[in-house]
Amino acid sequence: MSVLQGLRRACQINPRGLATIDGGRRRTWSEFRERVARFGGVLRAAGVQRGDRVAILSLNGDSYLEYFYAVPWAGALVVPLNTRLAAPELVAIINDSGAVGLQVDETFAAMLPALIPNLTTVRAIWVSGSGVTPAGAVSLNAAIDATEPIEAADGSASDLYGIFYTGGTTAASKGVMLSHGNIVANAMNMLTAVPFDTDTVYMHAAPMFHLADCSATFTLTMVGGTHTFVPRFDPVTVMQVIQDRGVTNSILVPAMIGMIVNAPAIGEYDFRSLKGLLYGGQSISEAMLRRAIECLPACRFVQAYGMTELSPVATFLSPRYHATEGPDSGRLRAAGRAAPTVEIRIVDDDDREVPRGTVGQIVVRGPVVMQGYWNQPALTADALRGGWMHTGDGGYMDDDGFVFVVDRIKDMIITGGENVYSAEVENAIYQHPAVAMCAVIGVPDEQWGERVHAVVALKSGQSTTEGEMIAHCRQLIAGYKCPRSVSVRTESLPLSGAGKVLKTVLRKELQL
Amino acid sequence: MSVLQGLRRACQINPRGLATIDGGRRRTWSEFRERVARFGGVLRAAGVQRGDRVAILSLNGDSYLEYFYAVPWAGALVVPLNTRLAAPELVAIINDSGAVGLQVDETFAAMLPALIPNLTTVRAIWVSGSGVTPAGAVSLNAAIDATEPIEAADGSASDLYGIFYTGGTTAASKGVMLSHGNIVANAMNMLTAVPFDTDTVYMHAAPMFHLADCSATFTLTMVGGTHTFVPRFDPVTVMQVIQDRGVTNSILVPAMIGMIVNAPAIGEYDFRSLKGLLYGGQSISEAMLRRAIECLPACRFVQAYGMTELSPVATFLSPRYHATEGPDSGRLRAAGRAAPTVEIRIVDDDDREVPRGTVGQIVVRGPVVMQGYWNQPALTADALRGGWMHTGDGGYMDDDGFVFVVDRIKDMIITGGENVYSAEVENAIYQHPAVAMCAVIGVPDEQWGERVHAVVALKSGQSTTEGEMIAHCRQLIAGYKCPRSVSVRTESLPLSGAGKVLKTVLRKELQL
Repeated sequence: MSVLQGLRRACQINPRGLATIDGGRRRTWSEFRERVARFGGVLRAAGVQRGDRVAILSLNGDSYLEYFYAVPWAGALVVPLNTRLAAPELVAIINDSGAVGLQVDETFAAMLPALIPNLTTVRAIWVSGSGVTPAGAVSLNAAIDATEPIEAADGSASDLYGIFYTGGTTAASKGVMLSHGNIVANAMNMLTAVPFDTDTVYMHAAPMFHLADCSATFTLTMVGGTHTFVPRFDPVTVMQVIQDRGVTNSILVPAMIGMIVNAPAIGEYDFRSLKGLLYGGQSISEAMLRRAIECLPACRFVQAYGMTELSPVATFLSPRYHATEGPDSGRLRAAGRAAPTVEIRIVDDDDREVPRGTVGQIVVRGPVVMQGYWNQPALTADALRGGWMHTGDGGYMDDDGFVFVVDRIKDMIITGGENVYSAEVENAIYQHPAVAMCAVIGVPDEQWGERVHAVVALKSGQSTTEGEMIAHCRQLIAGYKCPRSVSVRTESLPLSGAGKVLKTVLRKELQL
Repeated sequence: MSVLQGLRRACQINPRGLATIDGGRRRTWSEFRERVARFGGVLRAAGVQRGDRVAILSLNGDSYLEYFYAVPWAGALVVPLNTRLAAPELVAIINDSGAVGLQVDETFAAMLPALIPNLTTVRAIWVSGSGVTPAGAVSLNAAIDATEPIEAADGSASDLYGIFYTGGTTAASKGVMLSHGNIVANAMNMLTAVPFDTDTVYMHAAPMFHLADCSATFTLTMVGGTHTFVPRFDPVTVMQVIQDRGVTNSILVPAMIGMIVNAPAIGEYDFRSLKGLLYGGQSISEAMLRRAIECLPACRFVQAYGMTELSPVATFLSPRYHATEGPDSGRLRAAGRAAPTVEIRIVDDDDREVPRGTVGQIVVRGPVVMQGYWNQPALTADALRGGWMHTGDGGYMDDDGFVFVVDRIKDMIITGGENVYSAEVENAIYQHPAVAMCAVIGVPDEQWGERVHAVVALKSGQSTTEGEMIAHCRQLIAGYKCPRSVSVRTESLPLSGAGKVLKTVLRKELQL
């Protein structure tokens, strides 16, 4: 059981149906498979061996989907890179993974001069698209055209499919190892929640490097539907693509849904093709849901909660519980119930299950749980202790099995669907000479769900401004991780007995 | 990942919902789990160890469902017995499985005196229901009431869930070993084909010992729906139960659907609750489908094709392809397309894939394929050669992946949903002193799909009648396996060069 079984099934049940629509370029499932088999040959010819890693740094597009199948076709592992990371962060991850190959698109080809001198294991670089190929790289399309297809290097369910990095700085960054079995188990759970079939036209608008969108990738291929692409999210492009390509389904974060339903031009587009939107990472507010139902009347909403370590879905909140009135209403703040093959418990600090309604840590068991963190046996053993994945998320379960996520124990901020770990931002702020103490918290934000806010206590006699502090951070970490607002103060931050900043007190002070 | 995960999920998401309705007896999922945990204690107290086998001989009912979960709860394997077998056949299977325990219901308690003296491994016998408990057995209900619940003996996906016997005589009978992973993989495929949820009321009307009905058993529990039971199929009872209990779904063979839609009293019942019927084993005729759509307007039909060795489903024909007109019509004779995690190929005698449209053997790969035949390593190696399950069924695939089953290579007759192997019936006929040669074939039958027909060539100077030949068989094999019609002749049967009866020639002679 490998993800390639899904590709073979698509080619068996819908060989003449469209696999990809990328701008004006359309390919059938038969054509797609032929390209994947040739791309596999390109990797093999470059010396990529079974178990090797091949990374990708690319916006959304058909070449990303080809990568997702060609790499396992050659027996290798995918390493999708977060396109919003800074060059030093990317270098650290690529080197940590030991990738021997790297695929970049035309957009990121410009970053190659900053990356190449620092890559320790990469031996081959391919540039997709038709633009100029920089020094040290080769044109992927030319290579595919010049290479004979190879036989697929099929593996078993327990073989690794890829390494998916979460977090950001080298220290915090963890490579989540997911097997083919993990990916297929998640795809099957998805298929029970979103009824994809050969008629589905799915829009990749959320970033394809992120496992949330990947979740649809493998599900849709398995049923032989059509993939279409928005290079990067932008509400107007998304509305145009939905209308022009008859998009039936997509996965978005609530912030993106908000940008669409609040777009001034929304009335100019026809969304009748849109049957289902899956969203995750955050709950949807009742106000936004009402507005979305008004704008997208044919659309059924599904919420998913999970994390990369869970391949990624743990719970689904089905369309039924997106009712704003009637017996099924009142569930909108829930993250949903366990996916069919997922087991969920809420446990205390000693891993004992707590009563319904009591807040504890959400832990998960089942075939979607990761194989571990790449080269991090201690972290792996801790996360998977007792056979359960410890999510680090706090939550409770009601009497009908609905899970409510109330807090992120790991203190992660989710802004526009991206995860930001406050410790990483604090590390950057602490590098400023004027800072005595700081704390980074997520504050509610209409557009982004949460935004990164920093509270900074200055050293005696020092001064700084909000703008200077943000600019300081921009030199060190990816833009989306930088604080969007900063409170600068001279008095100390509230501390616990152990000397940790009491963020709960801080939130109260800020009246959040 | 064990089938017990599904039970835990049902209890988490629908603890107060109904698990079972058996006549006037109703139990919630919480109550059901409590009984299963106590029943597990009963097995443990009787010395049932991890890996032991516990058989069951019972009509449909809630105690059958409890058995399906209590046996793995105690770490043991289920061995469901075909209720239509004769005592010697049952004894052979129970002894072959090495079962240490046996559950029978009140109906089959009467058979115990014929079974007990011949059982070599059974140490404990339980009788479900409230009737008299015969010598050598104990009351299951009394034992459950008197026993404390135990912790579940959870296992892994690769642990065996049970042994499911196919065929009949000791020689032909094979115990199909299915793992927990097999059962869960099939349940997930089912869940993508039949949208069961907590509101589903599923009627067990086909026999619960057969894997076709089991297929729904584990799927339905996983989503916390309600099981209801018809002890044994009978069209009037079935119609009454559908109406009285608001049945939404069931699995039937086409012969059963035929008996319902042709029942004189059909107009007296209300079938509006019935949303979906899955049928298998045979295609449905367009005439029967039209009649069924007329009688059951809200009902969506799904066909499944498979075999016990495939846990059991390989293909689904979705409601969409049950159209009698429009672009999706013309698929009704197909068995459907590969289930999501199933791979299907049509191969020649050398296991090479044949072109689309060419008849070959249907072979299957994926997580639903059995672990092997119990104590039959040679048969197992042959059936699973090259990593593919060789179904023995002939068929072809069209350009859209639809599989058409055209012949049963193993020469199996399917009559009223039951498999009859012609060789076994021929063995019985050959035991009659007047018989020189015989051949058993399936002939089309309005009510049963196929019926067992025997062609008998007499020894010189001998005579017999159709009635005498049928009566002879009834002494030796189960009633459903006996010929329903017999052609007696004096001339020899057509033979191949190798001396095998040419059944194709025989069919032509009979103008079939």
